[in-house]
Amino acid sequence: MLSPALNRLVEAFRRLPGIGPKTALRLVYYVLSMEEAEVEGMARALVEARRRVKQCTSCRNLTEEETCSICRDPRRDTSIVCVVQEPRDIPVIEKSGEFRGHYFVLHGALSPVEGRGPAELKIPLLLQWLEKEQIKEMIIATNPNVEGDATAYYLAETVRPLGLRITRIGFGLPVGGDLEYADELTMKRALEARREML
Amino acid sequence: MLSPALNRLVEAFRRLPGIGPKTALRLVYYVLSMEEAEVEGMARALVEARRRVKQCTSCRNLTEEETCSICRDPRRDTSIVCVVQEPRDIPVIEKSGEFRGHYFVLHGALSPVEGRGPAELKIPLLLQWLEKEQIKEMIIATNPNVEGDATAYYLAETVRPLGLRITRIGFGLPVGGDLEYADELTMKRALEARREML
Repeated sequence: MLSPALNRLVEAFRRLPGIGPKTALRLVYYVLSMEEAEVEGMARALVEARRRVKQCTSCRNLTEEETCSICRDPRRDTSIVCVVQEPRDIPVIEKSGEFRGHYFVLHGALSPVEGRGPAELKIPLLLQWLEKEQIKEMIIATNPNVEGDATAYYLAETVRPLGLRITRIGFGLPVGGDLEYADELTMKRALEARREML
Repeated sequence: MLSPALNRLVEAFRRLPGIGPKTALRLVYYVLSMEEAEVEGMARALVEARRRVKQCTSCRNLTEEETCSICRDPRRDTSIVCVVQEPRDIPVIEKSGEFRGHYFVLHGALSPVEGRGPAELKIPLLLQWLEKEQIKEMIIATNPNVEGDATAYYLAETVRPLGLRITRIGFGLPVGGDLEYADELTMKRALEARREML
């Protein structure tokens, strides 16, 4: 019942994650209410983001330059590297203010089913870097799930011969969370990760 | 911390309704994972929908032609018109299968605060149509809220001299809804709208 151009836009929005048919339709009606120049700006932003953004040749973070702003920053500690699954994990860690080293982005976790092995995650590139740059510690910040755990153990085993400190971020109850609502696996990890208080 | 092109795309997504900073960021990362051709197709769909879609000269529904598909359909009943606030209300009514007449889209409700009077809602155009086309019934399907109610009463008073049947869609409990969760205004309307069963 929608006109062809509207149907195409509904389909375009539905391709985005978390956007179902109803939300897509709401967005389409909103786009129709926008100024034409604003819609053109939005379209340009889409195409340019996709075209300009590429992977940092050093750490595989997203960047529009040859290397990312973190790799270029001379104030960052070059002796410590934090390995994350996705570029979107970096802002989360940066916001904590607890880490001033470099990152390495795997762009996924090991998954034989989806055809992601060590080569796809560019783990050889990471090893090369760890050796060349005299890194003292590698913090593994893969996700706390089956794939993230497997990737963490694989990384730890692979990097072990280099003799540097290998850690993984702590798991437990989220701050401000309610113990009552903690799932059993989080509770299990929180108990395992208990520390002396006095 | 994001690159300029990414920031521009985050801002573009945030302009859409219901999309906050976190969702915008998630969409941006998704766009980066798409094929470049697919992103270009999405950008084109945005611009073309905005450029091609205009208002039906007869009923103000959205269309890419001079008049909309409903106005052009010879099987529709031309003696009855349903007045709605927005084009998006039409599919909802169409899906019920209960209505085979024509529509008239106000593109809003009367709102002195936001500067929408009868002229802005093109009510004179509606009156002209009602007179010319020998309409027998006007169903008012504005929203069940203060602005929609005011618009409904204004329309009813304005159209009254034409001597046609003027109705408004029924209000009450939604089918499948749980009485327990009905708000007090819906419950009030549902009681007012009660009907004899036997």
